[in-house]
Amino acid sequence: MIPVRAQVPAVPITPKEIGLDVGRCYDAGAAMVHLHAREDDESPTWRGERFEEIITEVLLRAPEIIVCVTSSGRNWSDLPRRTEALSIPDPHKPELASLTLGSMNFPKSASVNAPDTIIGLIDAMQAANIVPELEVFDVGMANYARSLAKAGRLKPPYYFNILLGSLGTADFNATNIAAIVGSLPEGSTWALAGIGRYQLSANVTSLTLGGHVRVGLEDNPYFDWRTREPATNPRLVERLVRLGRELGREPVTPRIAREIIGIRQKEEVISAC
Amino acid sequence: MIPVRAQVPAVPITPKEIGLDVGRCYDAGAAMVHLHAREDDESPTWRGERFEEIITEVLLRAPEIIVCVTSSGRNWSDLPRRTEALSIPDPHKPELASLTLGSMNFPKSASVNAPDTIIGLIDAMQAANIVPELEVFDVGMANYARSLAKAGRLKPPYYFNILLGSLGTADFNATNIAAIVGSLPEGSTWALAGIGRYQLSANVTSLTLGGHVRVGLEDNPYFDWRTREPATNPRLVERLVRLGRELGREPVTPRIAREIIGIRQKEEVISAC
Repeated sequence: MIPVRAQVPAVPITPKEIGLDVGRCYDAGAAMVHLHAREDDESPTWRGERFEEIITEVLLRAPEIIVCVTSSGRNWSDLPRRTEALSIPDPHKPELASLTLGSMNFPKSASVNAPDTIIGLIDAMQAANIVPELEVFDVGMANYARSLAKAGRLKPPYYFNILLGSLGTADFNATNIAAIVGSLPEGSTWALAGIGRYQLSANVTSLTLGGHVRVGLEDNPYFDWRTREPATNPRLVERLVRLGRELGREPVTPRIAREIIGIRQKEEVISAC
Repeated sequence: MIPVRAQVPAVPITPKEIGLDVGRCYDAGAAMVHLHAREDDESPTWRGERFEEIITEVLLRAPEIIVCVTSSGRNWSDLPRRTEALSIPDPHKPELASLTLGSMNFPKSASVNAPDTIIGLIDAMQAANIVPELEVFDVGMANYARSLAKAGRLKPPYYFNILLGSLGTADFNATNIAAIVGSLPEGSTWALAGIGRYQLSANVTSLTLGGHVRVGLEDNPYFDWRTREPATNPRLVERLVRLGRELGREPVTPRIAREIIGIRQKEEVISAC
């Protein structure tokens, strides 16, 4: 939602640019892509049509990749706009959608996700047969996930993306990782993401601790924070794949990632249609 | 104390072999060496003369390196044998000596360090003006360090080596790292070491979390646990230096390491003689 060309030269904006960029990430080993949509003037948009154009371009270059769309309330908070991309029909229907499990502050603004909104997003995802990518920025959001799991509102297995290092939410350290991972419901799979200068450290820590990773320009504009060398999405993926291999963590294919997360394989979706 | 040539081909045994091996580690970026002594038949020894021969060979190839000797009670528990290496005179006097802060089990034996023994080792080190390398295998040992610090038996700054992943003590995970690091007294510097298959993960996690590292054949015989490719000490150091640089952690010189740990620089020792 935030990076623009003037500050982050390699950020893809148009559907075709996004498709090409995802294709390179897929070739480098990415199993899943988390998508936001922009209009040609770089402004964020909720329009389902635009998401569909993007997913079309993505699947052209990365036919097996798992597609996740944002349902972020950062720029608009009403459910209809936050869920418009969920109703894209097959074969461009997203498989996951993000779900932030509480309200919080970004460094310069509040991100409000009231309990009713969270429930509304879950209902919309379940109606569309779309799996939530559970976004956790702090311990309380993991606690809320446990409560939703206990009440049967979330169904296992659960896929969590834990984002550390944003000012106003949990910072990146062992205590917070232990507290958040230890608060997840049983049957959870988790990835660590780090904001800004914490991206590489959080990703690598997840690789050493047995977790998964989210990486990209949405969270971090620099390949090297010391020199401020700009990043590109494919280079960020390539580095993690290389470091993961060195640490004994082979990247998984989208097929295995679907098994881990509990998403139906593509041929099952097609045969069920 | 444990690895022998038959199982770990690259383990150095004689003083000259140890000196050459440390020289290569020093050239690769190691700032400190933790030494055990062997007789020519590979059996562990406490003899101060043998330690002095080793240190002589080490300083010939790595003149600036920080020298730490073991005071382990693994094979003999009496204080005189555990402290014999502390009385080596300058210029081969060790700068640090290991101090395990409690009793514990190794996978096949007990390692007994009663409170009186720990106090006796501290007294011997303080009398010899040698800094303890505080070895912590579990949360209780960190708690005991706090108690010793509060009582003034240990003097800040404190240098901790946290060893994770040995059967019978704390395993390698975020909860244990958080619990142990969070239990250290104020003014502590810490390194993470991992036993066996946890060595690389523990070292890299320490690099991402801001800690320091201990690596070597004493804890882990393999460079790659998947292929069982044997390790050498210099290659283990080289890999960590390379990974550390990629994670924004430049290895420090022995001079800076002495500042961090609170050991007197060599010229200060000489001018005080």
